[in-house]
Amino acid sequence: MNSGLIAVDWGTSSLRAALLDERGRVAAEHSMGRGILSVAAGEFPKVLEAATARWPQRGEMLCLLSGMVGSRQGWIEAPYCACPAGFADIAAQLAWVQPARVAIVPGVRCEAQGVPDVMRGEETQVFGALALLGLDSARLVLPGTHSKWVRVKAGRIESFSTFMTGEFYALLRQHSILARTLPESDGELEAAAFEQGFRYALRTANLLHAAFSARTLSLFDRMSASAMPSYLSGMVIGEELRSQGLSLADDAVVVVGSPELTQRYGLALRLLGVRSAPIGSEATWGGLWSIAQQLEKIA
Amino acid sequence: MNSGLIAVDWGTSSLRAALLDERGRVAAEHSMGRGILSVAAGEFPKVLEAATARWPQRGEMLCLLSGMVGSRQGWIEAPYCACPAGFADIAAQLAWVQPARVAIVPGVRCEAQGVPDVMRGEETQVFGALALLGLDSARLVLPGTHSKWVRVKAGRIESFSTFMTGEFYALLRQHSILARTLPESDGELEAAAFEQGFRYALRTANLLHAAFSARTLSLFDRMSASAMPSYLSGMVIGEELRSQGLSLADDAVVVVGSPELTQRYGLALRLLGVRSAPIGSEATWGGLWSIAQQLEKIA
Repeated sequence: MNSGLIAVDWGTSSLRAALLDERGRVAAEHSMGRGILSVAAGEFPKVLEAATARWPQRGEMLCLLSGMVGSRQGWIEAPYCACPAGFADIAAQLAWVQPARVAIVPGVRCEAQGVPDVMRGEETQVFGALALLGLDSARLVLPGTHSKWVRVKAGRIESFSTFMTGEFYALLRQHSILARTLPESDGELEAAAFEQGFRYALRTANLLHAAFSARTLSLFDRMSASAMPSYLSGMVIGEELRSQGLSLADDAVVVVGSPELTQRYGLALRLLGVRSAPIGSEATWGGLWSIAQQLEKIA
Repeated sequence: MNSGLIAVDWGTSSLRAALLDERGRVAAEHSMGRGILSVAAGEFPKVLEAATARWPQRGEMLCLLSGMVGSRQGWIEAPYCACPAGFADIAAQLAWVQPARVAIVPGVRCEAQGVPDVMRGEETQVFGALALLGLDSARLVLPGTHSKWVRVKAGRIESFSTFMTGEFYALLRQHSILARTLPESDGELEAAAFEQGFRYALRTANLLHAAFSARTLSLFDRMSASAMPSYLSGMVIGEELRSQGLSLADDAVVVVGSPELTQRYGLALRLLGVRSAPIGSEATWGGLWSIAQQLEKIA
């Protein structure tokens, strides 16, 4: 048996695979545009085979998949693991599939105010980020289409909540009346406009109202069209951060995401006087590696 | 000279005209799908002529137009009247056009927290609603794509603010991930789901977070697809009302709009223990009539 790991981040629109060596280091990576929405039922094994074909040792290695591949629309549904959820809980609830030694990491669910919340894929990034930072308690944000704010205590995800920040930005950007006055491409981030949008969101504390300012500032020529995407981005991120109860005394917030998003969230957190620790896509590999380690402990 | 009035509500997507008699009563009405977006520059006189062709006395009558017809994309731009703005201020700033005796009612602007806010057409409905109710001070809401909350004191609009409630509802309904689990048509209002969405918006105080509950409630089969549009409607209206600082001691809020919207806002206000006074589309005719009266006083 080979003690490395094949780690796969399989989301809605793409698939990323990595070959990790016996110490968890990335030996090779491969990406494909075969997100789960492009894969017919029954074809998941074949697509995984194609994604890992360059790695001849794959047949003997453990293969862990995280992300929407475990959803109802994926390979098989891996039922959500309830909070609080740690490595061990997740390892115990892996959904094993054929071929042998391939398993899907379950998502995590929690409940607040009588309403469920869910994530799938982010739980793996959370564990990976903490492993990489050597932390077992932290506050994290995973910005994106649906941003997740996560609290981890003693190695277990205690609670989390979702904010549809990236999706609202895209809706306003592409489909709202504001789209008419925005340039076609977002261009470079304009820090002053970003901060203006961010602070206005905090002051007004209501996105339904704040968003209209993008229209009137444009109507009265008080903001250039080129600054508008940055203004709107600062606004939706401000609206998200407004509800996190952040304060100067807080530990650094771990921000897991692309360089562009970790930069924006770092900037936004700094405006509140809160430090941030950015972690990139390596978090997924670290998380899958940590779960594999946990699995060996159980075995 | 005929002392009646031709009143025209000319918006983005439609035109409604009314012949008012010498006491301001509606003698005839006519609607056309000729909103300003369908009218080429220079063709506004011709379209107005067509809309009022059935009324032979029109040539000698005053004709007042309100709505987006006074915007940059309309007949001519009628510059916004600054708050506080009353009948007299608006009458003094009418934008007269050719043919003679045709004038466009200016919109109103105000400024809060360094950001302008605007309305066009709603100012006329505000004055009309107050005239119909015999009030000279009130709090009003004009729900719609862009809801306006308006404070009137001693017959003048003191301040107002816009909430993009209807537009956000449509964005979520049609273009967001939530659209996938919603039925094609909204169907009848389900009061329990409406109230549930309304209260959840108040509790979470953040639409970016609250909206995701529509996804998870559906995912865990805790709400039927048919109830979802009502849930989402209650949620966005809750998000709007949350920021109005309403309290039990408040006077009735005047709600100006279609029967469907005044019903929903009345229900929402009642959930907060606040009374509402509904007024329909007759508010526009009442407002234009009041401005005409003001004009006669000046003349």
